[in-house]
Amino acid sequence: MHSISIMTKFIFLNGRIIPDTEGSVSTDDRGFLYGDGIYETLRSYDGKPFKLAEHLERMRHSAKQLRILFEYTNTEISEIIKTLIDKNNIQDAYIRITLSRGAGGGRLQMDDNIEPTTLIQVKPFSPYDSKLYDEGMTLVVSDYRRSTTCPISHYKTTNLLKSILLKEEAKTKSAHEAIILNTDSYVAECVVSNIFMVSGGSVITPSLDTNILPGITRITVLDICKNKSIPISENHFTTDRLIKANEVFITNSLMEIMPVSKIDNYKIGKVIPGMITQQVMSAYKRLI
Amino acid sequence: MHSISIMTKFIFLNGRIIPDTEGSVSTDDRGFLYGDGIYETLRSYDGKPFKLAEHLERMRHSAKQLRILFEYTNTEISEIIKTLIDKNNIQDAYIRITLSRGAGGGRLQMDDNIEPTTLIQVKPFSPYDSKLYDEGMTLVVSDYRRSTTCPISHYKTTNLLKSILLKEEAKTKSAHEAIILNTDSYVAECVVSNIFMVSGGSVITPSLDTNILPGITRITVLDICKNKSIPISENHFTTDRLIKANEVFITNSLMEIMPVSKIDNYKIGKVIPGMITQQVMSAYKRLI
Repeated sequence: MHSISIMTKFIFLNGRIIPDTEGSVSTDDRGFLYGDGIYETLRSYDGKPFKLAEHLERMRHSAKQLRILFEYTNTEISEIIKTLIDKNNIQDAYIRITLSRGAGGGRLQMDDNIEPTTLIQVKPFSPYDSKLYDEGMTLVVSDYRRSTTCPISHYKTTNLLKSILLKEEAKTKSAHEAIILNTDSYVAECVVSNIFMVSGGSVITPSLDTNILPGITRITVLDICKNKSIPISENHFTTDRLIKANEVFITNSLMEIMPVSKIDNYKIGKVIPGMITQQVMSAYKRLI
Repeated sequence: MHSISIMTKFIFLNGRIIPDTEGSVSTDDRGFLYGDGIYETLRSYDGKPFKLAEHLERMRHSAKQLRILFEYTNTEISEIIKTLIDKNNIQDAYIRITLSRGAGGGRLQMDDNIEPTTLIQVKPFSPYDSKLYDEGMTLVVSDYRRSTTCPISHYKTTNLLKSILLKEEAKTKSAHEAIILNTDSYVAECVVSNIFMVSGGSVITPSLDTNILPGITRITVLDICKNKSIPISENHFTTDRLIKANEVFITNSLMEIMPVSKIDNYKIGKVIPGMITQQVMSAYKRLI
């Protein structure tokens, strides 16, 4: 039965490890009907999930704010992921933890005491093209402006249809990612990544009050800079300043640190990756 | 087996009529993971779905724009709903049609050729408290401002977590519904309803370019006004004008036409429902 053991992958769903082919949620699940859910994605390197505690802390905070029950301890989640890494035999994995409010409740109401749906998937990680880390990604500024009062932008929710459309907008403009400005015209973040610029020797990134996701890799980069005594600043800035930066890079847990070579029609930086971007990339690799 | 036939309800899922207890979608369904889906809700009266063709036209338009396959003809959907109404023995039903892009594809990409998930649920309609139609609902202006460039506000998507939070905001302020202004400070719509005011003998409602859902009941009300020679205008207006209106009402397919008695701390109208609101409510009832 070797062929089956190769084909079958396992997931964790509501307390049980099951083959992914048997993974299903109720048609009444609020995650499916109302986007009433949150998630985290992270990677494992050599079988070890990276920054799992930080991802779970963010998820636990979001779950609390949104009154979705999160029933597992960090130790339990850690053991489930370890089991899935072993059973699926994937050392370098894409890990997604999805938590929905569950099935039932009153339509758009935040009913309490609903049995949540907890799904953990461990899949092979498909790396980004390695050339991109040498040559940089190209970005475009999206036509969309995010409301500074949007109440869910700082949570990692499953409400991703807008992100799908913005990614499509970037693709149409032959770019890898789109920069989202907020309605105050300040740079906020990209569709699936946080953004940084290097200017006058400082690393500058939009402050959380631009209404962005508090990225785990974002914090890791800020910590790296602190340790290396690179001046950092969380601030408000416009695209005018961004395109004049010496270096620009974007971050998320899946692609780590990605240099940027172009924003709209403006070339960024003299060498890709820039000197400070290189230092941050190397320091990140050493943490893994 | 009488007790079972009372308990069991049927749904339509991907070509089959099945008991709702057996209704499930894959844990890889993009509706569940990415909110990659749209839906319609409507009512049936005496076994007849109201404005089904209009709902399906809107859904077909959204599906096309979002490149989600919609595989059924109007006749097929109509027959499925009829079967569910009969089998579930619910004449006055809440009907929800949900369409997701299905399972698979590349994360945030709008891949084509994914097998969509089509779900139709027919449940007993829980009417709103009849007192509300006599006394009116109370509204509050949400603190949230919707971006005028939000690319999904004019589709009825399953990305409803923001709506859940805004409903909770209204509840916290002891109101039934919340008014959403856009980032130009114009009244757009409510969380789950379109809004109308009567001023100087005219019925005025936010124009579609305030970035709202083109409601089926909204269009029906505009048609009613045209037939009754009540002047109508689709326009931009602020809350300053709204709270000075002679009458305010809100609409959706489930609650139909609902008078409004209060917005924040301002009392609206001399009698509830106002004269023109009453005419529209009566005319709507006659269409059913």
